[in-house]
This record gives sequence, structure tokens and C-alpha cells, in this order.
Amino acid sequence: MIKEEVCNRPIGVFDSGVGGLTVAREIMRQLPNERIVYFGDTARVPYGSKSQETITKFSKQIVRFLQTQGVKAIVVACNSVSACALDELEKDVDIPIVDVVRPGAKTAIGATKNGRIGVIATEATVGSGIYSRYIKNNSPDATVLSKACPLLVPLVEEGLWEDPVTDEIAGRYLAGLIDVGIDTLILGCTHYPIIRSTIGRIMGDGVALVNPAYETARELKELLQEKGLESRHRPGLGTGTELYKFFVSDAADKFQMFANSILTYGILSAKVINIDEY
Amino acid sequence: MIKEEVCNRPIGVFDSGVGGLTVAREIMRQLPNERIVYFGDTARVPYGSKSQETITKFSKQIVRFLQTQGVKAIVVACNSVSACALDELEKDVDIPIVDVVRPGAKTAIGATKNGRIGVIATEATVGSGIYSRYIKNNSPDATVLSKACPLLVPLVEEGLWEDPVTDEIAGRYLAGLIDVGIDTLILGCTHYPIIRSTIGRIMGDGVALVNPAYETARELKELLQEKGLESRHRPGLGTGTELYKFFVSDAADKFQMFANSILTYGILSAKVINIDEY
Repeated sequence: MIKEEVCNRPIGVFDSGVGGLTVAREIMRQLPNERIVYFGDTARVPYGSKSQETITKFSKQIVRFLQTQGVKAIVVACNSVSACALDELEKDVDIPIVDVVRPGAKTAIGATKNGRIGVIATEATVGSGIYSRYIKNNSPDATVLSKACPLLVPLVEEGLWEDPVTDEIAGRYLAGLIDVGIDTLILGCTHYPIIRSTIGRIMGDGVALVNPAYETARELKELLQEKGLESRHRPGLGTGTELYKFFVSDAADKFQMFANSILTYGILSAKVINIDEY
Repeated sequence: MIKEEVCNRPIGVFDSGVGGLTVAREIMRQLPNERIVYFGDTARVPYGSKSQETITKFSKQIVRFLQTQGVKAIVVACNSVSACALDELEKDVDIPIVDVVRPGAKTAIGATKNGRIGVIATEATVGSGIYSRYIKNNSPDATVLSKACPLLVPLVEEGLWEDPVTDEIAGRYLAGLIDVGIDTLILGCTHYPIIRSTIGRIMGDGVALVNPAYETARELKELLQEKGLESRHRPGLGTGTELYKFFVSDAADKFQMFANSILTYGILSAKVINIDEY
């Protein structure tokens, strides 16, 4: 029997920056009783253009920080980390870790009718080949086409969510996927759901868009239930336990502004910590 | 009298990534006898969207690394570092430091006829107000208009040097500067000289573009002469002293590719070091 004290511990959620907030938002929706400690590595963002070694080193530091916060489970809310560092992170901890790649890939396998699945992601995620490998292992007849879209993250971060430039750049990245007739597209970077409507318009109605955030939150829910780790009641105001805490490695103000445009729940403050001390 | 051994030491040049190579290129042109040790912080690039504290912390580590390489002078080939951290860096070392902001500002003061000077730069550089402060101190009647252009760096890094999207984005950033009738524009980020022709086309013939890289190399030359630190002869092949050495904190292959598209001198290799150990 798991003690209530453990069940009341927060979920650690992390990303290279703000993108993982789309995953945090889904966890808030689907698991309203759960406390969250979010960390965004805003001093070293982006990860998607960096090497596996560097991504692994940075994310190990973050996991160590989250453990100091007494988290009961960790959600890797970053595709690049899920793709490049998950195995290494799992070696370091004995609490459950949920990533964003496997849930998204599973959903895509269930959704495709013609077996042609597209993946858009960062260079690091595409370079790792992980979506393709996971999908092929579970659905050997599937065809997987991956496309790195390095400019989409800066366009989203600059707020060009509905803009002809974003249409043009997304159109260039997606053209090859349209040509080969995919019917399912995985939004393999946590920034992309923010421009979901642009991507949907370009791909057309015949293509199902998979947002791994939704499936990740669902997988987390199942995992917590299975292990008897779910929180039984929502921490109330004034109980001394904050529902959501946000930490960053730089520029808390900018993070707060972005967070408040993503989350329905307004965040009060984000605290800057020195992540390379962990 | 300065010993020849000291004169033969390399110049340390650093940037958050590849942009500073446009400054290194100018030093190679104007000071062909000088050896260079270049460091690009590719693990933590970009700096321009980060805070003064983080930029200062990162650049102090780099200066410590360059000192282990026995450099006789340091060139801060990054506007964001020059803008946010120069004073702090100067406290730490007793060798000459040349930045990119002051030389560029000086040239702009000399170049303007109508006293209206524009500056395009990163958010960090614009936020610091340094160009404006320096120009006003030296030319109190000048009007300085600064514009942060956060998307230009990723567009340059993605190789969209001649592309309608870069034209469109640059056009948006520059529109306000055209409206107020500047006659001189400082390219206040080391990536921008790479798209100089796009910027020149948008601004028109009546606007002088100032590339601080050229003036920085000239200032370095004067400083070395003044202090009797210039190298008297070009190190030859086979003397055991490499002319140019390149270090990065991540992804050496990608850096080499970019470097070889910028420099006329082909770089043989870049070595990855762990910068946060310094």
C-alpha cells in the first residue's frame, strides 16, 4: 500500500523551454488533482538543434533537480529529450518516467488507415530515428516519413501563430509529406500544437493530426492508477501546497508571459534556478 | 619590451555560436600574421534572447577557457556579450579586450550625415541600450533607433540567405527605420553581415550599412601595435603552431560546415570542449 504522502507528491514535467507547457496543460486538464513542478531550460534552449550527448547531459541535470523537489513521477515533455536521452534517464531514477514519443507513435499507429505516417520534429528528434523505429517495431508494414522543421520553433516563439510567413515555411516543410500521401501526421515537437490550425489547413481534412500531449497525459494517468500513485483529492488553496510550480534557468518574465498565453490557469511566478549546479 | 613569445600568442575570439566567424574572417584578412583561437558556444546558442545574468555567466566561462589557451588579447565577437557583459569581463582579465559594439558605434557616428542612426540587433543587445548610450555620449545630437530582429538569426542559420521569407521578415523589422529616415544602419549582430545584400536592398542606396566586424579588426590591429603585441611574422606550416584553432561546446560537424561556408580558409576541424567546467 502506497502512503498518501507519496501520492500527494507532485509530477515533475520538463522541457527545453516553453513548448512542454502544451503537455503540462493536458495534464492539468486530465489530472486535475495532480500537483505539477515544471522546469523549462530557458538558459540553454533550444535542444532540437543540439547533439545527443549535450541533450543527455542537460536533461540528466534537470532530472536531478526535479528529484530535489520530491516528484513521484517525471514527464519528459520534450520530443528531443524523449528521442535522445530517455534510456539514459531511466537508468538514473527509480520513479516512473513518461515520455512523449511512445504515446504519440502508438496513437498514430491506431489512427492510420493507409499505413503512411508522417512525423514533423526537430533535427535532433528526426536524426534519432526514434519515431520510425518505434512505429516499425509495432507495425512492420507502416511507412514512416520524417521531416525536420527547424524554423517552426522560432516562428512559434515569436508569436507568428497565424501569419503568412509561418504558412509559407510550414508549406515548404510539409510539401514532401503531402506528395507521398500520408494520412496521419505526428506533431513531434511540443511547440507544434500551437500552430495546429495552420498545419491542419495545409495538410487538408484527409490527414489526422496527432498531438502527443493528449496521449502523454492519458498514459501518465493510467500509469499512476496502475501503481496506486494518483492523488485522491485536489490540494486546496491555503493548504500550503501549491498546485503548480514553475522553474526556469533564465528569463522568468518572458517565460511567464508565454505561459500565460498558453495555459488557461494564469501562472503567478516562475523562479530562476542555476541548473548546471545539479 | 614585450618578448617575442608573448607576441606569438594567439588572439582569442568568441561568440555564442557561428556568427562571430564573420569577425574572425575580418581579423584573418586584416591581421594575417595573427594566430586565432575561436570558441563558439554551440551548446547554449543563442544568447540574444537570454538575460544579462546568463550571458555574463556563460561569457565568463569562455574567457576562462581562452586564458587556458594562452591568448594575448580577446575579441568579443558577439554583440549580445559586448552589450551585456563587457564590464564584468574586463574586471576578470589583465589582457586587452576588444568588443564589437564600440567600433561599430564609432563608425556609424562618422558615417551619418543627418544624425539619424538605426541599429538592428538581438533582444539582449537592444534591451541593454548600449548602442544608443554610446552614440549619444559621443554625439549628443544624434538620434538612435534600435530594433530587435529575433528571427533573422534562425533564418541565417537555416541558410535562407537569399529567400523571399527572409526578405519579408527583414522588411517588417526595417519598415520603422525606413519611416524615420535613418541614413546609417548598424548591423548589430554578427549574423547580419551574411544577409547584408538583402538588408541593403530593402534600405536602399541612401543608407550606409555599418558592419562592426571590419572596424573591430581594425581596432584590434591598432591596439596590438600600440601595445607592441603584434606578431611579426606569419607562423609557417610545420612549425608546430597552428594558425587557426576552433573550439565549440557542441556539434562540431555542423559548426565546421557552417564555418566552411563563411571562411575562405577551409577549417580542418573543430574540437568539442565542456565549457561549463571553466
